[in-house]
Amino acid sequence: VRVVGIDPGTARTGFAVIEETPVGFETVELGVIKTSASTDATVRLLELHDAVTGLLERSRPDAVALERVYFQVNARSAIQVGQASGVILLAAARRGVPCFGYSPNEVKMAICGYGGADKEQVMRMTKKLLRGSRGRIEPDAADAAAVAVAHLNSYKVKKALGGTS
Amino acid sequence: VRVVGIDPGTARTGFAVIEETPVGFETVELGVIKTSASTDATVRLLELHDAVTGLLERSRPDAVALERVYFQVNARSAIQVGQASGVILLAAARRGVPCFGYSPNEVKMAICGYGGADKEQVMRMTKKLLRGSRGRIEPDAADAAAVAVAHLNSYKVKKALGGTS
Repeated sequence: VRVVGIDPGTARTGFAVIEETPVGFETVELGVIKTSASTDATVRLLELHDAVTGLLERSRPDAVALERVYFQVNARSAIQVGQASGVILLAAARRGVPCFGYSPNEVKMAICGYGGADKEQVMRMTKKLLRGSRGRIEPDAADAAAVAVAHLNSYKVKKALGGTS
Repeated sequence: VRVVGIDPGTARTGFAVIEETPVGFETVELGVIKTSASTDATVRLLELHDAVTGLLERSRPDAVALERVYFQVNARSAIQVGQASGVILLAAARRGVPCFGYSPNEVKMAICGYGGADKEQVMRMTKKLLRGSRGRIEPDAADAAAVAVAHLNSYKVKKALGGTS
């Protein structure tokens, strides 16, 4: 099973392509899509959409897992993250890749076993779970990796319980 | 000058194609894009994006005017409206059509002359400003028409003041 985890944003969108192998989670690709700050907001959405389309084309994932952002502090940033996730979901829908949303708490639960874990603990545990990822990872890419691993872990649990998704 | 006004939403997106002619504002097309409630949220975004792309192709507007949604009551609905506006902005960016956002207050100001106008007053005034629109208009389409007229009015004011946009 291969999953693309995404931490959406108009300026910076973290992504992580994680493959579940018999020996553990392999990091296929990790990175951050940055859109040009000088350009129009709509052009940034276009850049983001096209970059995600390219990512899905080369990585051919079974699923996309997104950080859910319902509990964003203010409505203005919620709108911006909503616009970014909108064009990401569109790119996935265009290719027929199913999308799954995870709240920050669900990610913490799936990775550390409890929803109260802090950012540092989540990042340390994510790195431990990923084979072959050495050195410093950009925070947005690490968040994306955490969401991908959260999806793979909860998917495994569901499979173990006899669920189909 | 021809403007497409849009009131974004994932389930219902109102639109209005308004042309400014020497004798007033002409309604070219008015309607509501409805996405299928039974389908996945990502498929709805795809349906919305493709419908807006079709609308822009047949109406060939000089600009798109959108209702701005920063002051949405809760973050969850802000995210959904953000996702809808994201795929709409993407469709416009793809065709190179400039987009302009107007807050509900700016729409009221541009149409009724004061920000405290209620929904009824805005709708009555919008209908009065539009030539050739008779009978009942769906509320989402009327909101879209109001945004389009607001853009044309503020554009006229800017032109009168010597501005270029």
